[in-house]
Formats: sequence, C-alpha cells, structure tokens
Amino acid sequence: MTGEFAVIDRLRRLLPGPPAGETWIGDDAAVVMPPRGGLLLTADAVVEGVHVDLDLLGLDDVGWKAMSVAVSDVAAMGCKPLYALITVCGPPATDVDRLYVGVAEAVEAYECPVVGGDLVSSLQLTVSVAVAGETAHRTPVMRAGALPGDRVFVTGRLGGSAAGLRLLRAGEIGHDHPLALAHRRPLARLAEGRAARAAGATAMVDVSDGLAADIGHLLDASGVGAALDFVPVAGRATLDEALGGGEDYELVFTATNPGHVAATFAEAGLRQPLGIGYCTADPKERTLAGEPLPDAGWQHHFR
Amino acid sequence: MTGEFAVIDRLRRLLPGPPAGETWIGDDAAVVMPPRGGLLLTADAVVEGVHVDLDLLGLDDVGWKAMSVAVSDVAAMGCKPLYALITVCGPPATDVDRLYVGVAEAVEAYECPVVGGDLVSSLQLTVSVAVAGETAHRTPVMRAGALPGDRVFVTGRLGGSAAGLRLLRAGEIGHDHPLALAHRRPLARLAEGRAARAAGATAMVDVSDGLAADIGHLLDASGVGAALDFVPVAGRATLDEALGGGEDYELVFTATNPGHVAATFAEAGLRQPLGIGYCTADPKERTLAGEPLPDAGWQHHFR
Repeated sequence: MTGEFAVIDRLRRLLPGPPAGETWIGDDAAVVMPPRGGLLLTADAVVEGVHVDLDLLGLDDVGWKAMSVAVSDVAAMGCKPLYALITVCGPPATDVDRLYVGVAEAVEAYECPVVGGDLVSSLQLTVSVAVAGETAHRTPVMRAGALPGDRVFVTGRLGGSAAGLRLLRAGEIGHDHPLALAHRRPLARLAEGRAARAAGATAMVDVSDGLAADIGHLLDASGVGAALDFVPVAGRATLDEALGGGEDYELVFTATNPGHVAATFAEAGLRQPLGIGYCTADPKERTLAGEPLPDAGWQHHFR
Repeated sequence: MTGEFAVIDRLRRLLPGPPAGETWIGDDAAVVMPPRGGLLLTADAVVEGVHVDLDLLGLDDVGWKAMSVAVSDVAAMGCKPLYALITVCGPPATDVDRLYVGVAEAVEAYECPVVGGDLVSSLQLTVSVAVAGETAHRTPVMRAGALPGDRVFVTGRLGGSAAGLRLLRAGEIGHDHPLALAHRRPLARLAEGRAARAAGATAMVDVSDGLAADIGHLLDASGVGAALDFVPVAGRATLDEALGGGEDYELVFTATNPGHVAATFAEAGLRQPLGIGYCTADPKERTLAGEPLPDAGWQHHFR
C-alpha cells in the first residue's frame, strides 16, 4: 500500500504537465491562465454500480467516461473545455493507475488537461470531474432559445450506449464491438457543438439521460413544443433505448436556418446532423410521428 | 421519492441566484464572469465514514465541511474564491435539503456561490466540491518560496478538530462546545490568507492533514528545513492531535519580515498569527524544540 501523496505523484507522470507560468497538480490549488471571455463551470460524477458495471468495463473506461460526461456539458454549450479537476473516491485496492490511463486518453482527445483533484479512500468507486471552459467572447448556446418553426437536429443515432450495455451483459458482443464502445467510450461532441453554435443554433443540450428527457429540458427552458418525425436508432438498439437509455452524449440542437447548419457542418468536415422534427408554438406539444413522446429517461431519486 | 430534477430545482431555492448576465444551476454548464487575473481551481471530497461520522455530525455540518475544505485551498494561496460546484452522491433517503442548509451557510460565509454540480444516488455519502477562485492580478502564495531564516507562522491553535471528534465520541462534550464546533464547522481562513499574502508571505499551506504532514509539503516544495520552538495546542487537544489530527484548516505560512506580518494582521483587525519557529538551510531538518518532528499526518492509502 502506498500513501496518497506518493500515488498522486505517480499519477501526475501519466498526465501532461503545465506550461511556464502555470501550476497544476501539487499545490493547494492549480493556478492557470484565465479563460478568453466568460468562464464555464460544470461537474458530474460517475458511480460504480449506478453508471458503470466493473464486470463489464475496465477502470480505464471509467476514467474516460467520467471525463467525457463533464466535457460533454461544455460541448452542449458550443464551447471549449480548458481544465479538469478529478476526484477519485474508491476502495484502497482500486487500480488508480489504470483509471488514469483512461483519464489521460480523454485529456489528449479533448485537449483538456487535468490540473488537480483529490484522492480519497471509500467503499464505492465514485469519480467526480469538474471542468472549466471558455466562451471565447461569444454567446454560448443555452437550453433556452428555441423558437417555433426551428428545425430540431441530433448529431447522431441514439441508444447505442444502452444497447451496448444490454448486449455486453448478455455476452452477445465483444468489448470492441461498436455498440460496446458506445457504452465504454462515449465521445463528447466538441466539434459538433462548436459547429452548431457557428451555424446559429438557438438552443442545445447533450443526450445524457435519454432523448425524451433531454429534449424536454430544452423545450421547457425555451417555452416551445416539438413535433418529431422520427428518432434515429443506433445499430441493434431499440426505440426505448434511443428515447430513454441516455449516455449517448450526442447533441440535440435547434436552428432557424437548416441550410446554414448543413453548410457549416460540411465546411467543418463533420457528418451532417439529422433533422428529426420541428419546434412548435404549443409548449405542451411533445410528439413523435403524431403520437405522444414517452416520458422516459433516467433520473436518480431522492426523498 | 422525487426525481433529481425536481430535487435540484428545490435545492436551488435554498441558494442565492445569479446576477444578470450569468447562468448558474439549470443549464448544461454555468456561465459566469471570468476571474480578475489568473484562475485558481481546486477540488476536494468529504466521505461518510472517512471524514465524517453521521452519528456525530448533522448533514448540514457535512455540507458546510465539504465547502470549507475546498475554500480552504484558495485561502492557502492568499486568494478569493468565486464559484463552487457541488456533487452529492448519496443514498436515496439522504436529507439533501439539510445538507444544502450547511452549503448555503458556507456560501454566505465565504461569499462563494454554488453555480452547479450533480446529484447522484450511491451507497455511501460522498460530497465533492470544486472551487474556482481569482488571483486578482497578484502572485498567489505557493508552497514553494520559503527561505532559510524566514519566520514560520500559524494562524491559530491546532488539534481542535481531532480533539472535538474524540470528545464527541466519548460523550464528554456537547455539540456546541468550541472543540465540537472545530470539528463540525471548521472555518476556512480567507481573511488570514489574504493578510499573509499582503504581508509578503513567502510560502503557505493549510493544515488539512496535520501540521507535521502539511508543513512537510511546504518545506519539501521550498527546499528548506524548519526548527520549530513549539506547537500551539487547542484546548483539551493533545500534541499528537495538533501534529497529526488535521482538518483544523488553520494556515501555516513563512515570512521574511515578521514586523510586516504583525502590522498587516493588526491593520486587518485579525488575531495575530503565532510565530512557532524558523526555516533553516538544511532541507532535512524538521525539529520541534530540538527533537525530530514526528512524521505524523493522515493519508489515504492506495496500492
């Protein structure tokens, strides 16, 4: 067994270090360059047995996932992450080095260094990630802002993470199957979020709890309704998984000028987002192909 | 039982809301004013059974403590906290409202609003707090920087938190005894940290793991030794509790000009910090009244 300070020093070597003038891991707090424009702040936790099943996922997957979930919130504002803080609470036997391999991969993929955090012994593995981002002096895309008549877009097919979990549990797919990867290694859509903002997206949210719940947040905040024509379902996923599975981290956004969206995504070399319906003036309207949209979606319950 | 979104909406009403132009709780990420000067980032977790015993502490104490631990890291840089993110992982029956009463008290005391976070069901209560602060265009006080000959100061007596825990467990003191409050309601020393910086402190750290461990971090980072004359012990605390108990959140700092320290603290209306010894040129020297300083202090252990 090794004390936390020695472990932190070891983990630090798995991660990139600071440029001149900044202090990252190793002092009471990290000292970093301020953001360009407004500061974005968000935090999320990934909990063993709730979000991740360690019989199916590696600890590197947990590290990746914890980073991705927090970075995805910044993607959903159309902005850029700058710095992450990671707090790992876990049993003493936890292979934190392996967890940090996944963290380091996410640091590289998202260009979002880990500048500090905490390491604490506990019974149940809990990884909390806080991310600071920048608005770069432009207005972020909020949940509020969608207008009646706006087209509703989603950046990709949904339900892949939930289907991957189901099929991994059933032993029907291997760990490197695309649906398994959708569950183990979800990707925060940073480039898509920035393209949507550049294309004048009026509102945006990431699909963390399931399309039905997350589009509900956007519509509630905007005071509009939505008539969806269809929901794009990933691979062997079911419609229920696409609507309520969550953890896909695709982005749902609304835009007044669909032609501008198509041109902006093409110019950025990104796959075209899928137009799945329109916003309507009746804030109570939530339909899919004329039928009421199921009130599905994952929520934690408290008293 | 209530879904997390409804609970978050209820908790939000316990907390102050944003000024015009900022978005706090309720979107994918908070959008806030950037810091003046450099950005400080820090995160800490408080875990049931590790840092807090729920038979002795109320959930409001846990909320207060989680905020204080993270804010204390900013105090130890001589800086000002700006925003906090709070992630609560806990059993569904957790009285999160009571936890947030303590959070709200800390928000007011530290002038550090909660702008976002996460709420997740788990088996063991874990409260993670990330804090963003500002340097206000001045150099923060790091752990490195102490010079041989610098006077070593501590902002108050130590061991109170550990003694409070011991005496609460033994039923020897009530919940409002000063030592019980030192354990239940530790105070981040923001004003003292800023005064130390204004007085030219060369290095600073907060006493979270115990004086012996924390001054060790400062001396290691600075490459100097220390000869301490005495350790100020709080009330009925023992010397071991003062050296190794931790969670007092007093600040330890070094300064080249003790007269400037006395004048600055007096001018700020703060209790004078206690001069407990001097830095020495031998980086291996760690003595208390001529004897080796015990290598005490709390650490979490990992493989």
